[in-house]
Amino acid sequence: MRQITKTIRKNSLRRIFVYRSCLQRLNLRGVEKVFSYTLADEAGVTPDQVRRDFSEFKIKGNKRGGYLIRDLLEKMETMFHRNIDHNLIIIGIGNLGLALANYSKFIQPNMEIVAAFDIDPSKRKQKTFDIPVYSMDRLEEVITRYGVSVAIIAVPEISASEVANELVRYGIKGIVNFAPVPLRTPPDIVINNINMGDELESVIYYVHKNNGLLNKDIKY
Amino acid sequence: MRQITKTIRKNSLRRIFVYRSCLQRLNLRGVEKVFSYTLADEAGVTPDQVRRDFSEFKIKGNKRGGYLIRDLLEKMETMFHRNIDHNLIIIGIGNLGLALANYSKFIQPNMEIVAAFDIDPSKRKQKTFDIPVYSMDRLEEVITRYGVSVAIIAVPEISASEVANELVRYGIKGIVNFAPVPLRTPPDIVINNINMGDELESVIYYVHKNNGLLNKDIKY
Repeated sequence: MRQITKTIRKNSLRRIFVYRSCLQRLNLRGVEKVFSYTLADEAGVTPDQVRRDFSEFKIKGNKRGGYLIRDLLEKMETMFHRNIDHNLIIIGIGNLGLALANYSKFIQPNMEIVAAFDIDPSKRKQKTFDIPVYSMDRLEEVITRYGVSVAIIAVPEISASEVANELVRYGIKGIVNFAPVPLRTPPDIVINNINMGDELESVIYYVHKNNGLLNKDIKY
Repeated sequence: MRQITKTIRKNSLRRIFVYRSCLQRLNLRGVEKVFSYTLADEAGVTPDQVRRDFSEFKIKGNKRGGYLIRDLLEKMETMFHRNIDHNLIIIGIGNLGLALANYSKFIQPNMEIVAAFDIDPSKRKQKTFDIPVYSMDRLEEVITRYGVSVAIIAVPEISASEVANELVRYGIKGIVNFAPVPLRTPPDIVINNINMGDELESVIYYVHKNNGLLNKDIKY
């Protein structure tokens, strides 16, 4: 089950997202240039860390005079392929699928949810949002027509694995999985498993660790 | 803004979640003991990695005869404080808040969402689920009454920061933030920012990296 490790995204990539949001904020404030130590301070890391991360993702800049913020942001756009359009699909229009489909804020300008799929015919008649909802037997046709390579799974645990297999069969290369079960897929498929329970537990873990609460009661 | 680094969870903790789901699966199959290399194979890491992670989180076992699966699972329960009940609250009952409140699967048996909050009075009258929905001015009272230490933010970007400040003022120690903006909080507060856009972008990044697509076009 080698593919599960792919759920573990590199922390350097996570930090790039943090740097980007800091740079966007500085840019909005009218700041044009930034030194690695300023960005490091904004992001809560060391300047060395910033330079190591930039070097890993081949982001170069004129270090002496500081980095040009617009230049950095442009490089990140390219890195995340924002220069091309990405058509996405959602499988499962339950509460979560609906929320994701409606939650336009999470979509970047170059990402578009072109279709949703559900096995329940009544879901397909709901006109609560603009995205067309199809039955599962039109999956292949839609994936091919829109050149979709990334899909979002928001179906119940029990059908997640079957859905993932179908997606892979029809050419999907990346999956964001919201079903609370880790998925098995071939090694060339990128899986990002988002388990709400895990996200909550990790916060609870750090809250107790930070506060030194209960630690005396824990026997490992 | 040192607190943003806290959004970057340790990968060792992420792997513990993966090990746990592998162990649960083995346990359901009736398997009683596991060797680090079996678990490593299931989780897609090296046996050394398993042993290092277990040692970091002080999970010990009889390595010679293999680990007792039930024993490992019990230690993980303690590690994540599953032996005590955690009362949670959700702020914002838009589509995402509704989905989270209804998405019972993501909640562990020891976690309970005791209340939701929304500024919109019409949301408070909706009877679409069993959790009571209060106005924001009852925040302090509910947090105190239920001893809540972790909250979920599902409000629009524009009000997320104000809501976080209120939560902290009333004693909240950990926040799972679904608003697409990184939050500033005091250093003793644990923040887990979940940005759907970032989750999608990281999958797109790895899909293109894996497939060697477009790489020739990228200039850093």
